[in-house]
Amino acid sequence: MPSRGRLLVSCPDRPGIVAAVSRFLYEHGANIVHSDQHSTDPSGGLFFMRIEFALARLDERLPDLEREFAAVSGPLEMQGRFTLEARRKRLAVFVSKEDHCLQELLWQQRSGDLKADIALVIGNHAQMASVVEPWGIPFHHVPVTGDTKAEAEARQLALIEDRADAVVLARYMQIISPTFIARWPDRIINIHHSFLPAFVGAKPYQQAYERGVKLIGATAHYVTADLDAGPIIEQDVRRVDHRHDPDDLRRIGRQIERAVLARAAGWHVEDRVLVHGNKTVVFD
Amino acid sequence: MPSRGRLLVSCPDRPGIVAAVSRFLYEHGANIVHSDQHSTDPSGGLFFMRIEFALARLDERLPDLEREFAAVSGPLEMQGRFTLEARRKRLAVFVSKEDHCLQELLWQQRSGDLKADIALVIGNHAQMASVVEPWGIPFHHVPVTGDTKAEAEARQLALIEDRADAVVLARYMQIISPTFIARWPDRIINIHHSFLPAFVGAKPYQQAYERGVKLIGATAHYVTADLDAGPIIEQDVRRVDHRHDPDDLRRIGRQIERAVLARAAGWHVEDRVLVHGNKTVVFD
Amino acid sequence: MPSRGRLLVSCPDRPGIVAAVSRFLYEHGANIVHSDQHSTDPSGGLFFMRIEFALARLDERLPDLEREFAAVSGPLEMQGRFTLEARRKRLAVFVSKEDHCLQELLWQQRSGDLKADIALVIGNHAQMASVVEPWGIPFHHVPVTGDTKAEAEARQLALIEDRADAVVLARYMQIISPTFIARWPDRIINIHHSFLPAFVGAKPYQQAYERGVKLIGATAHYVTADLDAGPIIEQDVRRVDHRHDPDDLRRIGRQIERAVLARAAGWHVEDRVLVHGNKTVVFD
Amino acid sequence: MPSRGRLLVSCPDRPGIVAAVSRFLYEHGANIVHSDQHSTDPSGGLFFMRIEFALARLDERLPDLEREFAAVSGPLEMQGRFTLEARRKRLAVFVSKEDHCLQELLWQQRSGDLKADIALVIGNHAQMASVVEPWGIPFHHVPVTGDTKAEAEARQLALIEDRADAVVLARYMQIISPTFIARWPDRIINIHHSFLPAFVGAKPYQQAYERGVKLIGATAHYVTADLDAGPIIEQDVRRVDHRHDPDDLRRIGRQIERAVLARAAGWHVEDRVLVHGNKTVVFD
Repeated sequence: MPSRGRLLVSCPDRPGIVAAVSRFLYEHGANIVHSDQHSTDPSGGLFFMRIEFALARLDERLPDLEREFAAVSGPLEMQGRFTLEARRKRLAVFVSKEDHCLQELLWQQRSGDLKADIALVIGNHAQMASVVEPWGIPFHHVPVTGDTKAEAEARQLALIEDRADAVVLARYMQIISPTFIARWPDRIINIHHSFLPAFVGAKPYQQAYERGVKLIGATAHYVTADLDAGPIIEQDVRRVDHRHDPDDLRRIGRQIERAVLARAAGWHVEDRVLVHGNKTVVFD
Repeated sequence: MPSRGRLLVSCPDRPGIVAAVSRFLYEHGANIVHSDQHSTDPSGGLFFMRIEFALARLDERLPDLEREFAAVSGPLEMQGRFTLEARRKRLAVFVSKEDHCLQELLWQQRSGDLKADIALVIGNHAQMASVVEPWGIPFHHVPVTGDTKAEAEARQLALIEDRADAVVLARYMQIISPTFIARWPDRIINIHHSFLPAFVGAKPYQQAYERGVKLIGATAHYVTADLDAGPIIEQDVRRVDHRHDPDDLRRIGRQIERAVLARAAGWHVEDRVLVHGNKTVVFD
Repeated sequence: MPSRGRLLVSCPDRPGIVAAVSRFLYEHGANIVHSDQHSTDPSGGLFFMRIEFALARLDERLPDLEREFAAVSGPLEMQGRFTLEARRKRLAVFVSKEDHCLQELLWQQRSGDLKADIALVIGNHAQMASVVEPWGIPFHHVPVTGDTKAEAEARQLALIEDRADAVVLARYMQIISPTFIARWPDRIINIHHSFLPAFVGAKPYQQAYERGVKLIGATAHYVTADLDAGPIIEQDVRRVDHRHDPDDLRRIGRQIERAVLARAAGWHVEDRVLVHGNKTVVFD
Repeated sequence: MPSRGRLLVSCPDRPGIVAAVSRFLYEHGANIVHSDQHSTDPSGGLFFMRIEFALARLDERLPDLEREFAAVSGPLEMQGRFTLEARRKRLAVFVSKEDHCLQELLWQQRSGDLKADIALVIGNHAQMASVVEPWGIPFHHVPVTGDTKAEAEARQLALIEDRADAVVLARYMQIISPTFIARWPDRIINIHHSFLPAFVGAKPYQQAYERGVKLIGATAHYVTADLDAGPIIEQDVRRVDHRHDPDDLRRIGRQIERAVLARAAGWHVEDRVLVHGNKTVVFD
């Protein structure tokens, strides 16, 4: 009974990449189950590929595969990465006082729609403990103030170090420091509201109401040092009209936020998101 | 055989408005066919209502209705406006070099989906003449340069003065002067692309591509002196992904633009859009 | 401080209805906060209206209002119904083995998005007890077999009699008997999958997969004796493609089902759904 | 300057397909620009792949490529097909009395969104001639009656024989005979309305209105002998509510039909649709 693996590659585009990679897998007995690829430009652009393959005893053979793949990836200046479908990614979820995104992740984890384990939840307020604990998941209260931010982040980093593979900010209302981000690049996912046009400053839903927007939305993105401007993973919108007051907009916004964040987290843990520069390729 | 009319009112909200207006229509023999209303806040807010009614010989009775309605509207500090469904609004369409929005308006006019007459088309380039003329609609070439802008606008204003009830900017790539706008307030409709996040500066589709946005959209709005920031009438988006290059985004953008502009123009000519401050109430 | 009420009316359409109803409310000191109306045909059709109004001490004055409204409703052959916003509707949720719809209702109740109380949950299997009990809501296990159906329904009816105002079938995999339905007309809401084209028989998601449909959806409707053909309250779809296997379709279907059922239940408990014949008017 | 080609393959799935095909292209100097693949089941299923590649002087080298590819396709029991992007497909559009789908195709052809040439239009009524002729496209009036159907189809087949690569039924209200279909398998595209639930019999929009559906849609599919049940290419829906009367539904339906048909035709002419059994794989 073969098990499933994934191979993710990126490299400068040139002829022969698919031939080289697919021959490698074929010669090692792997059957390609699904494959997606993308080239930003066949002349001088970047090439990205995600392959799902089936191979017997993959877990024990993985170290050999990785070592031998160097003969393919080296000449092509390729970044390559193998992962095992059976080795589910572990998520650390950061929360503040709102639970809608957290609840969605917990629910989708249990239903099997989110193919990951929520390993721990960290809140800068205590009140989400009661939401998390019935699920048998550890909750850690790590308060953050202006003075204690460095220590709080040190504690967060220690908590997630060996326990998580990615961090999901589920309406976590604190800014993550560049130091923290640099240690978890392309592995911290955030959700924030999005409007057409964009509104800067406080109370965005109030501003959206005053401007009479007809669509409200949310964007999930990787966190970079440039606040709310990291690579976009997913976006969605819902239609609103003049009958919706600011509370309605916030309520509808919550529904979009939880759906968009859960989709983004789901694609991340299935290795469907490749980052290059400030944008993503999502093989959904 | 009764004909159809519309009554649009706006006033400070207070008890008794609906009772007063509906009694007026009832006593004049009008039957309310459809009614929409909206209050921004029942205590101290603004009240908006659009009523479609049926009344025999409405065209000849309209002057009396309007005069007698003053007895209702005066005490309620109400703006009231009657229109006849049979008196279709006349549109002046302004174009430059792209025809997708113009074609959609022409097509929807003929199919009957757009309940208006396109009375004339004005282009700052000559090339749309060949698109317009087979439809039997006058096309006027009014070139605009930095030096001749004032004269060009004077000529445009003269052309539309007695011929049009509203102006639709169908990808017209010139800025309308505040003087022009002041003479046609809440009657000039524009379409522009919209992204999450918004992009300032040139080549927005290129920027959207570089940022890897997952949604592109368009916004139709009334033109005010504050460029592209007038009251929003309609917005829509379409999903895109990494496979779409800037040309694809522009192509998809065109599809959204023509649909959104046609919906906005359609609501305007059916008196479904009420403006207050910088937002709209759309009784669609 | 006035409290909020709703007035729902339906009657044969004729001139003067809005004038009569709005005058009644005005003379009783009520301020109309929101109003929606619909006429199937101004000549000989049916007229529907939903009014939200504000009135001081509404709870104590309600019996008088109802009695005095007869002077309006009688001559107009009108069905009228007053409800109090503060008197939240109580829901009985029926479940089997799947929890996605149940979870959504529980979560939306707590977040305040669903303006109702889930008074009790009844399952024909025992396993949802562990989902329900952490929320402090009573769970009743009422097994149903071919032989015991009549007794089971009698027990269900006894359980909900004084405890619930409406029943939500949250993926309850039993057919409700006509006897049961007749006792709760227009108050039992069901959710089922919907496809284009429709598939009859077992394993609809497998059939949809084999047919290569590009959209899958769900429909929420009131339960009538005509199975799955009662008045539609809400529908939605999601886009799928050849990459989705039957399990994916089922997973996506669950997401649509829970969203559509929650919207339908939410509109019902806010008195936004009026039924006539086999269709609904939804004042959302 | 290399030109673009496409290779479409389908075969029983087994290890090594991608390796064999990609090596073939690499060894012939082709650079893979884009590639999509799909396996219905890696064990015993069917494998589909569409590759876009760039190769210098492709038009003259195509016959050699096709001949030499037999060495790859033979052992893998593979159907393979090469096409040239520069050799645009020619469409025959069949119409009756409605022009919305025809107009959309004409417009998208000219804007370049539809990468095909509309070679001729055939109408069973004469009135579309005036729509078609300004575009400089031949219109043929081929009346069809019960008695003359066989002759009419013979004439249609003669007209399209050497002039078209595919037929688009743009609201053509005649049934195509099995004989005709058998000569143009998987090359006749039809559009029809779609509802949840489906309605059989006449006046579907009236039925949808009477049932109070909340979504109306359209399906584009290949025509098979089984009426309206051929492989689905594309579907879409739009939201409606109780305010839409049957005429509104028809109007909205027309908007969906023209968009869905144009997307389906666009994918067909770019060789993005592979048919197997009664379903499609669409590499959009």
